[in-house]
Amino acid sequence: MNKETSELLTRTGPGTPMGNLMRRYWVPALLSSEIAEADGPQVRVQLLGEKLLAFRDTEGKVGLVSEFCSHRGVSLYFGRNEENGIRCAYHGVKFDRNGKCVDVPSSPQSCARMHIKAYPTVERAGIVWAYMGPEDKKPAPPELEWCLLPESHVFVSKRLQYSNYLQAMEGGIDTSHVSFVHRHEVDNDPFHKDCKALDYIKADGNVIFTIEKQDFGLTLFGRRNGDPDSYYWRVTQFLFPWFTLIPPFGDHSLAGHVWVPIDDENCWAWSINFRPDRPLDEEELAALRAGQGIHVPYDESKPGQFVPAANRDNDYLIDRTAQKDKRSYSGVFGFAAQDYSLQESMGAIQDHTAENLLPTDKAIVMARRMLVDAAVGLTQGAEPPALNATSQHVRAAGVLLPKETDPVEWAKDHLADDLSSPVHSI
Amino acid sequence: MNKETSELLTRTGPGTPMGNLMRRYWVPALLSSEIAEADGPQVRVQLLGEKLLAFRDTEGKVGLVSEFCSHRGVSLYFGRNEENGIRCAYHGVKFDRNGKCVDVPSSPQSCARMHIKAYPTVERAGIVWAYMGPEDKKPAPPELEWCLLPESHVFVSKRLQYSNYLQAMEGGIDTSHVSFVHRHEVDNDPFHKDCKALDYIKADGNVIFTIEKQDFGLTLFGRRNGDPDSYYWRVTQFLFPWFTLIPPFGDHSLAGHVWVPIDDENCWAWSINFRPDRPLDEEELAALRAGQGIHVPYDESKPGQFVPAANRDNDYLIDRTAQKDKRSYSGVFGFAAQDYSLQESMGAIQDHTAENLLPTDKAIVMARRMLVDAAVGLTQGAEPPALNATSQHVRAAGVLLPKETDPVEWAKDHLADDLSSPVHSI
Amino acid sequence: MNKETSELLTRTGPGTPMGNLMRRYWVPALLSSEIAEADGPQVRVQLLGEKLLAFRDTEGKVGLVSEFCSHRGVSLYFGRNEENGIRCAYHGVKFDRNGKCVDVPSSPQSCARMHIKAYPTVERAGIVWAYMGPEDKKPAPPELEWCLLPESHVFVSKRLQYSNYLQAMEGGIDTSHVSFVHRHEVDNDPFHKDCKALDYIKADGNVIFTIEKQDFGLTLFGRRNGDPDSYYWRVTQFLFPWFTLIPPFGDHSLAGHVWVPIDDENCWAWSINFRPDRPLDEEELAALRAGQGIHVPYDESKPGQFVPAANRDNDYLIDRTAQKDKRSYSGVFGFAAQDYSLQESMGAIQDHTAENLLPTDKAIVMARRMLVDAAVGLTQGAEPPALNATSQHVRAAGVLLPKETDPVEWAKDHLADDLSSPVHSI
Repeated sequence: MNKETSELLTRTGPGTPMGNLMRRYWVPALLSSEIAEADGPQVRVQLLGEKLLAFRDTEGKVGLVSEFCSHRGVSLYFGRNEENGIRCAYHGVKFDRNGKCVDVPSSPQSCARMHIKAYPTVERAGIVWAYMGPEDKKPAPPELEWCLLPESHVFVSKRLQYSNYLQAMEGGIDTSHVSFVHRHEVDNDPFHKDCKALDYIKADGNVIFTIEKQDFGLTLFGRRNGDPDSYYWRVTQFLFPWFTLIPPFGDHSLAGHVWVPIDDENCWAWSINFRPDRPLDEEELAALRAGQGIHVPYDESKPGQFVPAANRDNDYLIDRTAQKDKRSYSGVFGFAAQDYSLQESMGAIQDHTAENLLPTDKAIVMARRMLVDAAVGLTQGAEPPALNATSQHVRAAGVLLPKETDPVEWAKDHLADDLSSPVHSI
Repeated sequence: MNKETSELLTRTGPGTPMGNLMRRYWVPALLSSEIAEADGPQVRVQLLGEKLLAFRDTEGKVGLVSEFCSHRGVSLYFGRNEENGIRCAYHGVKFDRNGKCVDVPSSPQSCARMHIKAYPTVERAGIVWAYMGPEDKKPAPPELEWCLLPESHVFVSKRLQYSNYLQAMEGGIDTSHVSFVHRHEVDNDPFHKDCKALDYIKADGNVIFTIEKQDFGLTLFGRRNGDPDSYYWRVTQFLFPWFTLIPPFGDHSLAGHVWVPIDDENCWAWSINFRPDRPLDEEELAALRAGQGIHVPYDESKPGQFVPAANRDNDYLIDRTAQKDKRSYSGVFGFAAQDYSLQESMGAIQDHTAENLLPTDKAIVMARRMLVDAAVGLTQGAEPPALNATSQHVRAAGVLLPKETDPVEWAKDHLADDLSSPVHSI
Repeated sequence: MNKETSELLTRTGPGTPMGNLMRRYWVPALLSSEIAEADGPQVRVQLLGEKLLAFRDTEGKVGLVSEFCSHRGVSLYFGRNEENGIRCAYHGVKFDRNGKCVDVPSSPQSCARMHIKAYPTVERAGIVWAYMGPEDKKPAPPELEWCLLPESHVFVSKRLQYSNYLQAMEGGIDTSHVSFVHRHEVDNDPFHKDCKALDYIKADGNVIFTIEKQDFGLTLFGRRNGDPDSYYWRVTQFLFPWFTLIPPFGDHSLAGHVWVPIDDENCWAWSINFRPDRPLDEEELAALRAGQGIHVPYDESKPGQFVPAANRDNDYLIDRTAQKDKRSYSGVFGFAAQDYSLQESMGAIQDHTAENLLPTDKAIVMARRMLVDAAVGLTQGAEPPALNATSQHVRAAGVLLPKETDPVEWAKDHLADDLSSPVHSI
């Protein structure tokens, strides 16, 4: 990839082609629980290079506004969240959740010219989503399966990753790396217990991939030998511009991710587990809260920052003995830490001009192409793809199919459009 | 404000217009107590972007010289302060308090070409002041009231602020913010006890300001309702280029500040309490030393650095519960921390192109204009204002005046020129 | 020195004239003990601005390769060192010690285009040396005396210095500073005990230097009064491009250094003690391991980083009382810390345009001239000097010679070419 394309893909600040593209979709901004209470403490939020402030007003509605007061540029983080608005602590200038200035104590007539930027929000799946694009282009709210389920059926966490969003997201699209860095984790994960899929995975390391372009993004089909007359197919979904859905294991919950730029050198990795059939039970929730599966335990010395306990400052708690003993392939523990340790080691923004892609990188190449085409297209007046929320009604799957079955055809019938059908997972 | 004016105001390094202007005044450099002993340890001092070293020589006189040896550029911080000079530890090159090279052990004849920069100093009010301008332009030493009192009558502290001097100083000029971020602090401050002024302040939140340009800087008159036939006036002084005097409360000590650039992203905030009438007593001194009033407690993990205990690394110890309970308006405690938390949140150097000034910013606008005019004037050969030290013989005041009295006229008679007159404070 | 010459001397990254020059010599890369075991943990190594990875393969041979996988740019630090190669943890791409790609699990035919950079190595004196220059120009391995002795006779340590290599190395060439910053250390060092030399050193502070240009670099002769009919000569060697040999004391071990760029703002200071006559005994080793003499104790909070315990973050543990009491000249303890505290205080890269050299800097000037001439010469097709390893067969000495003896002639006969002759040390 040349430098120019690399810049196009990785730069997401205001006014960049990729930034403009991403601003046409709903952006996961923060956990609803970070601003749990009406008139409770506001929190700093950075998205796509913009410094914002989130708060819940007296009516319980969310404000997502510029972090800084329009008067002297003071951070509203130190302001007062009270009576349906946030009041700057310096001179009392007050803004409502729409960024409208509603009080300038010393000069009421100045209100009209003091408004600050504000973005519409919606809450789904315990996440506050923001729309940061042109007002008249706002799409319908997200309809991924985990956004439509009752809250009791969904567990969401986020973690800070010290890298560009692209190299993080590509780990979610590139399923071929699972056989390496996650090799021992796959066996030991509590959410993989008692499932037949592991036998097929262990028996056949030579996965053969088919990638299918879709209206909503990409579907990745990974084929392994199954029973004598069948193949075991693992079907991963990439939903434009930043969602991934992971093939499930046995009766365990389904899972997915979102990869969202904070700025060009940092991103939020959102991780979601969900059950269409029933609420997550206490045992499941306890494990998820403890950072198991695709989640992480946090660095407790940095409350509210969602920094993983294993991070670059401690070499991800690498354990060379465990690596030698084949308890961990890279010496790092946990699906997430295994990924972000490698992805952060690429540098804050990977040098794409130095990479040598392999056939197994086909899905990454296709996803990059879709992103580039959409970003460039937007600059030329084309509408972005996958704005139709119903196109998000798709699932990942792990399924045993007769050898003669075309998985692409099968997926059309079983994984899309109708989320009331049963989950396919073995 | 456009970018060009912003740069002019905020850049103070060698050769800048504002830097050249400030070099025409005596600069508070360090506490005399930092170099208490003759031949004691030298300390690093940075002022207006220049790295300097201060020491007290064998005669007890202060040297303020370039931090670095002229030979190989080694820091004299590691040198030896002995026998009326500082000797570089690397090769023994020695300089006296005037920067004159007095010994090159290996090559005595080389002394003549080895001198380093040195600045004249004077000690007043427990502060070492430096004159960093052209030799023939040195003004008389500072004559602010607190510089002329016996040491027993004055308490001085300094703290490091992580911002440009301008946004710090503007907090001292802009008295309208007191009603907001300091609202609860005003009530609870130990140095406001038993004073009638607080009743007037609480009763009338609608302060009306008059700003008067003076030879020495600006006088700010803030009017509140007093008794039926009087107004309560609070009179603040800004003395060019960086002094402020705060209106006093009741029988408590008078107070002031100095705001001095370290470099363009950091400044020293000097805080002074003083009594014209008598020495500060033990109770007063104990409170001041503990960081009460306008002073701060320090971060004990950074001795000698004058970093406040509440600082950006710990979000200024913000207490959201106290904010909610109206024990602190912004959740931060202490006059100083309330100010610098907000001022540092503006960024190291405020983006002036994004601000929207209000009528209450009139004093700030006037002070900026004076600074710009003086800096530009100097480049065109005009002499800077307020070089006459006797112009510094002014006081702040808090006073009840009959409604018909013109406070500007009153101030001419009662706050300037004659410091032997009684303090006006209620 | 002008800015251009300063840049030429201090910039050592790939493609720079000085970097190209240094790449023509064997570079001390890491301690053999850092990769002690076959198939043990790999370590990160940075040299001359290049990020590398060192490992010992199954055969016990050393690999020194690019830190990053050629596939996606992931650090091989997280890879697996197994079966004669290092395997990237992300997708299993594997490289042998020569950087040759030996496995791409998903696409074996891609191996041919996946190789990574690798440098030849040799192990001598417990150090892994790398050759980073053009393949056909590789010189014979280093033959300094301490490289040819049995391992039992040699003790080697390294420490991280936060400065350019040049100002570090110049401390090793500039012996005139010993009388200042090391004044009290010279007396107290355990490796100076019971030696007559100290009497001469104390009695005559006025050292007279003669510098002699050699094929291998420079020889520095420092003359002090000895007995009535003799001089005490201390003879220091600088071996191109970065070795120094220190005059010995009495019956103690010989000593030397190497000064190697990590990047332009950091370098490795290697310190070596060695005995031609016998193995170092337990008492000697215990003192050396404890960081005495020219070595350092390490900051234990940063294992594997070789950061000295006394460092810039703690002001080198400066002790002003000890400085006052003349137990330490600069207040810093240890030969090494005394040097690097001063050298780091010059800034990461010394501003050479501001220095004023003295007659005692003659050796520095000559060494700089040799480096500049060789670097410029190389760009014009000239071969670098001192590539002949046998030219490294020289020693430092401390010797009492009759006044009429020419030390330069004496050194030709006694300090060069024949390392089997006795050590000259009093």
